Amino acid sequence: MTDRPPISDAFFNPGRVAVIGATNKLGFGFGVPKYLIEHGYRDRIYLINPKQTELFGQPVYPSITDVPAEIDLAIVVTPAPIIPEIIAGCLEKGVRSIIIESAGFSETGPEGRQLERTISDMVAGTSTRIIGPNCVGVVNPHNGFATTEISFAELKPGHIAVVAQSGVFGNILMDWAPTQNLGLSKVITIGNRLDVDECDVLAYLAEDETTRVIALYMEGVKDGARFLKTARRVAGIKPVIILKSGRTEAGSAATASHTGSLAGNDLIYSGIFRQCGLIRANNFLEMFDMAKAFATQPIPSEPTVAVVTSSGSLGAMTTDACISLGLNLPSFPKEAVNKISSRAPAWMNIRNPVDVGPSGLFGPAMATAMETAAMNSFILIPVLPQMVLQEMKEADKNMDMSTWLGDIREIRRKYPEKPVITVTLGSHVWMQLIRDFLGDEMPILNTPENAARAVAELYNFGLRRQSPFGGVFPDSPFK
Amino acid sequence: MTDRPPISDAFFNPGRVAVIGATNKLGFGFGVPKYLIEHGYRDRIYLINPKQTELFGQPVYPSITDVPAEIDLAIVVTPAPIIPEIIAGCLEKGVRSIIIESAGFSETGPEGRQLERTISDMVAGTSTRIIGPNCVGVVNPHNGFATTEISFAELKPGHIAVVAQSGVFGNILMDWAPTQNLGLSKVITIGNRLDVDECDVLAYLAEDETTRVIALYMEGVKDGARFLKTARRVAGIKPVIILKSGRTEAGSAATASHTGSLAGNDLIYSGIFRQCGLIRANNFLEMFDMAKAFATQPIPSEPTVAVVTSSGSLGAMTTDACISLGLNLPSFPKEAVNKISSRAPAWMNIRNPVDVGPSGLFGPAMATAMETAAMNSFILIPVLPQMVLQEMKEADKNMDMSTWLGDIREIRRKYPEKPVITVTLGSHVWMQLIRDFLGDEMPILNTPENAARAVAELYNFGLRRQSPFGGVFPDSPFK
Repeated sequence: MTDRPPISDAFFNPGRVAVIGATNKLGFGFGVPKYLIEHGYRDRIYLINPKQTELFGQPVYPSITDVPAEIDLAIVVTPAPIIPEIIAGCLEKGVRSIIIESAGFSETGPEGRQLERTISDMVAGTSTRIIGPNCVGVVNPHNGFATTEISFAELKPGHIAVVAQSGVFGNILMDWAPTQNLGLSKVITIGNRLDVDECDVLAYLAEDETTRVIALYMEGVKDGARFLKTARRVAGIKPVIILKSGRTEAGSAATASHTGSLAGNDLIYSGIFRQCGLIRANNFLEMFDMAKAFATQPIPSEPTVAVVTSSGSLGAMTTDACISLGLNLPSFPKEAVNKISSRAPAWMNIRNPVDVGPSGLFGPAMATAMETAAMNSFILIPVLPQMVLQEMKEADKNMDMSTWLGDIREIRRKYPEKPVITVTLGSHVWMQLIRDFLGDEMPILNTPENAARAVAELYNFGLRRQSPFGGVFPDSPFK
Repeated sequence: MTDRPPISDAFFNPGRVAVIGATNKLGFGFGVPKYLIEHGYRDRIYLINPKQTELFGQPVYPSITDVPAEIDLAIVVTPAPIIPEIIAGCLEKGVRSIIIESAGFSETGPEGRQLERTISDMVAGTSTRIIGPNCVGVVNPHNGFATTEISFAELKPGHIAVVAQSGVFGNILMDWAPTQNLGLSKVITIGNRLDVDECDVLAYLAEDETTRVIALYMEGVKDGARFLKTARRVAGIKPVIILKSGRTEAGSAATASHTGSLAGNDLIYSGIFRQCGLIRANNFLEMFDMAKAFATQPIPSEPTVAVVTSSGSLGAMTTDACISLGLNLPSFPKEAVNKISSRAPAWMNIRNPVDVGPSGLFGPAMATAMETAAMNSFILIPVLPQMVLQEMKEADKNMDMSTWLGDIREIRRKYPEKPVITVTLGSHVWMQLIRDFLGDEMPILNTPENAARAVAELYNFGLRRQSPFGGVFPDSPFK
């Protein structure tokens, strides 16, 4: 189906929406229209259900063909068997964007598979695109539009697009995102992919202005050749981070059961991903840590890192991880050493990584590192034992992070071309304080290893983007 | 110094304590005595400082030899240069346990190194042991004793012993521990190891009744042959998880600077660790996730796992990780399939991993898995979108986790010989609810990959413990 038209903005910012299968019973048919009515769609939502006449104070139409207005997006939440008939109505009505959320398709066996084939045959050759089935559709944190119930109170709009197969995983990632300070641009759950697949979504996100990085969870490629071509092109435009499961035989059985995909041999996938310039994540924490870096940080011009830490141990772990990934830790030039050491206590060694310990010299050390031309990326590790923080607060009620860390936000802003990533560890209180202080300017990642990988992949992406191989950089020094 | 006496309980539960270098200026000399006075040591603490006469309402003695009582533990927080003189006083007084917290030793250069040598020569051949210098000593969460300022309000006593080199890292791990629901038995920071080293500590912890698992952060072994012998012996008694940095050249430079150790070649270390039966962690999250499993779960008799999940995607990731580590996921026997499927919706496939989705059958599926003889370990993945949880709460004010998950705590208790590990993901609210519900009986780990590794290492440890090779199991099928 390579001749299918691209998916449209109507999926993410529709004018008029129909919910087919709206009902007063708990479930998608109740939750989705309720959500949309409460979030700006009261005057442009059309509820469809032949067995109802009124819901949420709205009229209910027996069929989409009865709706007295054009529909940009139809959301289908009825039982699976009647969906071919519903799609026929949508086509008759001229609806170009449809999301089928219902389960009961290829994930359940041959009959469901046949049902999907029937529907995909119906839309082949038309300008109608279908997302799903067996998914929760899309979420657009920038305008509050969602085809699933979600709390936007905490979800932060941002620049990371998330593509998942299953609806549950998509929903819990959105619950989890605020705990990680992740800002999202779009969330798309593609389910069983009877029509729209990962390639369509990648192509859309490549052009989407709010998206800077794409985090793609996948359990199997639908069309290998097309994926290769699309992914290679998109990965040359925007970083694409991929988390693929179904790597092993039993894992494949698991994924076949829940989204109807057939997982391929893992080694082949790894090769394909590398050839395409996709960034393969080893687990979801690493995926979103890298995504956070790409969403907020510039691309470094050289593979060099300076590590500024108040914990020697975390500094050593970070250094290890950087070196294993092929990053360099250049030494401070003589003038820089003199500059820091003139203020430093005797025990402090001015080297890279620089461990400022309890000297209070975090800011000055960072400033000196950032002004060093040979240092192009920065991993900051500000840690402070809770009791020390408490004592500082007792001594100075107005104490905030800058009392101890210095004006590191101003220092950071002086060098917008250099990425700065943070790793820290501590109590909930500490994490909240430091997160509020650093914001997105110096995003906090979960481990030293993830921070190092993020820096390496920022640099790698810069190489790929410049490469004459169209998104492919065949001899990157990094793994 | 293999002939040195073992370290004594006086380090962790001393009768009378002296703080040498107690002062009214902010810092260790102020914070440590203040902490001890507030935590049960008012009547058995002796403060030493020739320049003071009274502190915290206590008399201050010019020297430890002036103290009119026997001292079990001396904590030294004075500047480094005068410490040899102080140690002489301690030896004269007959103090057998000393912690030197001061910095300014081998981590700063040759003079500091010489200072350490002077002190270690002084105690050689005596029955006095010294922890440090350049550390924060010890913390005993079971009795509230600590030689550093720490908030016990949140720190939970438990069965994980933590050994770190640096004081800062030790302190922030203790701040972080409650956020991970980690229960600790002892925390020991060994600093520059002028006398007591990782071997002494391992030997102590092997016998310590509150310790079930040892988490050792290390930047270099002090005495290779002795480490090999001790670690091999201890690893046959209790699981020892090791996180070693200074793996790479630049990393080595970093560690040399901050605790004065010389990091060895990483490959050699990996070989040694494997030979000794030590469990090498790839990062601190994995270290403490494994530790949590060892601290709370039994050893499985076979390398089999059942995965019970409400997210197919997380189930697939977990299965991948299990299979890559050599664990088996046996199928459900026919009767078990029938038992679950009689209650299950049509879309639910009864296989291992079993994805119960929104069926509400988490409890029944788990019960059936646990009663299956061929399934010896369990990874549970209960996830629930926040909005669904909210609706359940609106429908039923008294709703708690068991409304949705069933009586899984009772199910778990029926099979005390089978380990059960949880992975979940969601909002802060969700994480708190599920953590409170599951407690330590089904500890929550950070990623599917860590859960799989934990199960594999539980099983591996069981093999090593039974092995005739004295803690070494040369042909484990696991990596």
